[in-house]
Amino acid sequence: MELEIVTIGNELLLGYTLDTNSTTLATGLADLGIRVSRRTTVPDTPDAIIDAVGSGLARTGFVITTGGLGPTRDDLTKQAVADLYDVPLVLDREYLEQLRARFAELGRGPMPESNRTQAEIPRGATPLPNRWGTAPGLWMEDQRGTVVMLPGVPRELRGLLEHEVLPRLAGRVGTDAPVNRSRTLRTTGVSESALADRLAGVETDLAPLTLAFLPDLEGVDLRLTAWGLQPDQAEEALNRGAARLVEILGDDCYGDQDLAEVVLDLLRHRSWTVAVAESCTGGLVGTRLTEVAGASDVFPGGVIAYANRIKEQMLDVPAELLEAHGAVSDETVRAMADGVRSRFGTDAAVAVSGVAGPGGGTEAKPVGTVHLAAVAADRHRTLGRRFPGGRAEIRRRSAQAALDMLRRLLLD
Amino acid sequence: MELEIVTIGNELLLGYTLDTNSTTLATGLADLGIRVSRRTTVPDTPDAIIDAVGSGLARTGFVITTGGLGPTRDDLTKQAVADLYDVPLVLDREYLEQLRARFAELGRGPMPESNRTQAEIPRGATPLPNRWGTAPGLWMEDQRGTVVMLPGVPRELRGLLEHEVLPRLAGRVGTDAPVNRSRTLRTTGVSESALADRLAGVETDLAPLTLAFLPDLEGVDLRLTAWGLQPDQAEEALNRGAARLVEILGDDCYGDQDLAEVVLDLLRHRSWTVAVAESCTGGLVGTRLTEVAGASDVFPGGVIAYANRIKEQMLDVPAELLEAHGAVSDETVRAMADGVRSRFGTDAAVAVSGVAGPGGGTEAKPVGTVHLAAVAADRHRTLGRRFPGGRAEIRRRSAQAALDMLRRLLLD
Repeated sequence: MELEIVTIGNELLLGYTLDTNSTTLATGLADLGIRVSRRTTVPDTPDAIIDAVGSGLARTGFVITTGGLGPTRDDLTKQAVADLYDVPLVLDREYLEQLRARFAELGRGPMPESNRTQAEIPRGATPLPNRWGTAPGLWMEDQRGTVVMLPGVPRELRGLLEHEVLPRLAGRVGTDAPVNRSRTLRTTGVSESALADRLAGVETDLAPLTLAFLPDLEGVDLRLTAWGLQPDQAEEALNRGAARLVEILGDDCYGDQDLAEVVLDLLRHRSWTVAVAESCTGGLVGTRLTEVAGASDVFPGGVIAYANRIKEQMLDVPAELLEAHGAVSDETVRAMADGVRSRFGTDAAVAVSGVAGPGGGTEAKPVGTVHLAAVAADRHRTLGRRFPGGRAEIRRRSAQAALDMLRRLLLD
Repeated sequence: MELEIVTIGNELLLGYTLDTNSTTLATGLADLGIRVSRRTTVPDTPDAIIDAVGSGLARTGFVITTGGLGPTRDDLTKQAVADLYDVPLVLDREYLEQLRARFAELGRGPMPESNRTQAEIPRGATPLPNRWGTAPGLWMEDQRGTVVMLPGVPRELRGLLEHEVLPRLAGRVGTDAPVNRSRTLRTTGVSESALADRLAGVETDLAPLTLAFLPDLEGVDLRLTAWGLQPDQAEEALNRGAARLVEILGDDCYGDQDLAEVVLDLLRHRSWTVAVAESCTGGLVGTRLTEVAGASDVFPGGVIAYANRIKEQMLDVPAELLEAHGAVSDETVRAMADGVRSRFGTDAAVAVSGVAGPGGGTEAKPVGTVHLAAVAADRHRTLGRRFPGGRAEIRRRSAQAALDMLRRLLLD
């Protein structure tokens, strides 16, 4: 089964509102094996709504709309759908009473007259009770197809989707209906094109799965998707596909978790602890590690050593070493890592120092130059990188590279 | 002038990726007075791309696409647009050389063969140089209309939009076309309904501007918008409106910058420095401060003291004090702030300790309990808060509250 989503609202087209509803809908529907084949966003104008919903119906016979169900003048969805089905809007007395009761219950005083219009629905439509707001969802269906109208307020949409829409759709597609299922394997430190080269020809092994490359600042995610398979067949194909990718990529693939979580698990497995010493990342590596609940058994803390004098005073980096090699060097990050490990009494440590820009670059060490160190037990590793992008990007890439460096050191 | 956006990618329809690019495009275009009249998201299939781009061209004569320009098999945008314009893909030798040079410059070794396809462009298209990645944007134009193809990676899209697309469009629409302009004033620590009460009736003073309340984890932004005014009239109205809001809200409004930037400016103005001592935020306050370029003259660093023993060893918090009051208490955060200030030799300091959850809550100190301290010169302030939400939310709210506490202490 496939359907289209039509989201309605000027604010979406003006860029003031991020369309999170589409994501909510798509993930909920994918879970039932229903494929969203197109999403259209139109302004609050009757012609645009009728055109988008009408062509969606013609293509798939099933459209879900969001937005335009409120009590104000610019809420035009119901009228547009009524026009499309060639029926009038009629007052649903039962819903009107429910609305009045709801206002009383919330202690908001008598219901404003403008809300009365919310009880007007296209003739033949079924109202879907909205316990999270005042506009009911509406289910309109005849031989031309089905239009489900949902409110645009994210919380109301989520409530209606979960309690009213998905249960009805589940009944329609059945429990052993074919589903779309995905699995993501994450990589970092290898470019999209290098991955593509290494995975060239693997599509035949992966069939019937599809493989997508999703590059981001922090690496490239590989997403395997099973389309239209029975749930257990999908799981089996995904297990097989994931194993094949891991076989080819080895340690370049770190699974489906956040990298910080992977690093913490590797350390916890050895009963080891880790401290951080951060210059250009300014606390971002610590932030990444402590985003993971339960990090405290592995991570006691660290030092943000943004100024050189702090690198000396709090991390025992010798002034002569800083003088000789500069703050952005293998020698300095190694000393920072050793210093924080010794001060914090941990088994492992990572350190980062770099030029995040926009100022501070030199010919020898331009903006983007970052040195990283990882130490664990009696082993250590240092690395100089040159990252592209602006300040925020260089910092995010640096934190990710620092965590990955420690991960690889622990695996070796 | 109006145009349509077509975003391309299975991952958008599967709900795995939030479409932030559309927001970036719409706000940039609105600034030039260009209206986005429709947005369509289609899967990575040639027919769907051709249909959506073709009907957008028929309706408005101008379409911007995002996504599907990468080096892999599922990147089909160029071929689809070439088919639509009935031209072949041809190799752009100049761009190929630029690509090779870019790979060499980044020290990534020889360019993988799969990147060669990125230099193939529809005949007649103009490549838009992409300094943020490897896929060029493409500008295709003839008597049927214009299609501008942009990559789907948000950072690359932003770069190309700002440096290549908007300047070309600005030339086309002229400089005195009516525009929509917005200005945002930010608040934190005051609820949306409290702000609405204090601003009741202000709409008449603000006309012809509209006022929107945009609540977020970190506070409530107030957005003033001028619709369809000449650029200088819009600016004047926004200046007047912003002044009126500041008059009413006083210090509760901190301007239009990031709060960390405001705090750094206040400190810099006094030639003061600040250090941070972070427990539950794990480096997030340091991260916020160092996101701002040039923070180093004010911020030498800090200590992430996640474990109690680090609070003792690195921040000189007495063991008896921790024993008596617990790590999450006014007494402890005050001692942490004093400790980091003294160790780092700064004029000011902030400290945070709390229960970010999901575990670790008690009846007396449930998840969300956070204590904050700020010290500056001979003054200090401590505060206990109980924040709603999950772990990530509590941490973000805590970092924002810590910065705001220092801001208010500096203003008093």
